[in-house]
Amino acid sequence: MNDLVGRYFDAAIAHLQRVREEEADAIEAAAALLAEAVAQGRRVFTFGAGHSSLPAQDVVYRAGGLVPVNLLNVPGMAGVTVMPAPLASALERVSGLATTSLDLTPATAGDVLFVISLSGRQVMPVELARYARDRGLTVIGVTSLAYPGEVPSAHPSGTYLKDNCDVVLDSKIAVGDGELTHPGARTTFGPVSTIVTSALMQAVVASAVGRLAEAAEAGTAEAPPLFRSGNVPGGTEWNVRQMSDNAERIFYTY
Amino acid sequence: MNDLVGRYFDAAIAHLQRVREEEADAIEAAAALLAEAVAQGRRVFTFGAGHSSLPAQDVVYRAGGLVPVNLLNVPGMAGVTVMPAPLASALERVSGLATTSLDLTPATAGDVLFVISLSGRQVMPVELARYARDRGLTVIGVTSLAYPGEVPSAHPSGTYLKDNCDVVLDSKIAVGDGELTHPGARTTFGPVSTIVTSALMQAVVASAVGRLAEAAEAGTAEAPPLFRSGNVPGGTEWNVRQMSDNAERIFYTY
Repeated sequence: MNDLVGRYFDAAIAHLQRVREEEADAIEAAAALLAEAVAQGRRVFTFGAGHSSLPAQDVVYRAGGLVPVNLLNVPGMAGVTVMPAPLASALERVSGLATTSLDLTPATAGDVLFVISLSGRQVMPVELARYARDRGLTVIGVTSLAYPGEVPSAHPSGTYLKDNCDVVLDSKIAVGDGELTHPGARTTFGPVSTIVTSALMQAVVASAVGRLAEAAEAGTAEAPPLFRSGNVPGGTEWNVRQMSDNAERIFYTY
Repeated sequence: MNDLVGRYFDAAIAHLQRVREEEADAIEAAAALLAEAVAQGRRVFTFGAGHSSLPAQDVVYRAGGLVPVNLLNVPGMAGVTVMPAPLASALERVSGLATTSLDLTPATAGDVLFVISLSGRQVMPVELARYARDRGLTVIGVTSLAYPGEVPSAHPSGTYLKDNCDVVLDSKIAVGDGELTHPGARTTFGPVSTIVTSALMQAVVASAVGRLAEAAEAGTAEAPPLFRSGNVPGGTEWNVRQMSDNAERIFYTY
């Protein structure tokens, strides 16, 4: 054996260490915007298409996560649940979906939108980021800066997600998203994008929680609105109260 | 600041190093079953409810992933896309959903089913694993062995997911799924379960690809069926051919 398991974990860990060091400033900048929005009673939205939806969903209605974070749920694009599966990728190339979807959310100026796109080159994420900023939202992009330059933008402007954000978090995932090779395999394999992108999102939330908790400790603000696990005693009751207290800025429950 | 970002990355990396060492044998055992099933023309399914669906979707229709891997898609349970969001957790407690859902798939004896559940205690994952094994499927569970003992099973048998699998991968996530604390926050935060569980799933796939690639290199088998990124030149055409070549064992396209 080639110890592909060891090589896979090494690649994931090295990648996490790299973004931990090189993206620290961007993570803090995003966390400052997120904490400020939560403190001011604003709403937070996350979006990604296909596999980029997975880190977007990872911070929504999440044990240990902030309560007022909502998924911008565009039918057919959330993960790989649509049939046929290639439709999710095809929808990313349709102009007008982003504007229509955002118009139907209650998002208003001052709210925060996370747009996650590994390549950052498709119509949907670029159009969404541009339109959201036009509407006065704060846009935080999570993307790989390895793609621009190597792969052309599919958006009419020629721009990428990175060009249309207030803060950009660079996942540094290589084009093709495969960390491993084997002479008997005809393509690279072993993708780490979900691990790294989820870590970036969770790190931003963790820092934002810390900022809000500092203010709470100093007595100048309420404790940060956090969910607990539904699998620990009292967790479900705690979460019901959180949803009730934040009813005007969560849109995934009645 | 308490450098919560650094602490979050440290926790994620330490956790990955721990499962890399302690779960190596279980990962190889799961990979051997997966590679054998793929080589024999069998089909592969993955399931998780709520946030446990994210690592399940991470290996389906995936650049750098195996082609014949299908999501067992139970409406309302795939991620956090259902409205109201607490419905996903509530559905996990409904007996009969697992058997009904599996009956409506084309899964047959000899196929492989991955069941992902962080706590491993809810009705749905336990019922699904038991019923799948009754039907002759090979069941690989991905769960945290920290929960049994600390939190009671909700399944009538009193068993957990871990008790109903051919191979168990232990994510070792602490009860509550929060790696961080702050005196100003009223609960733990900073969940690493998506990162660790995705890494376990991807490591199993990587090792299975390696096993298939060894056979291909030795001339005793075809090259492993892998998807490429749709964002690299020729990727989409490559993927169309893969789907055509494996049409009888993928169920997410026409």
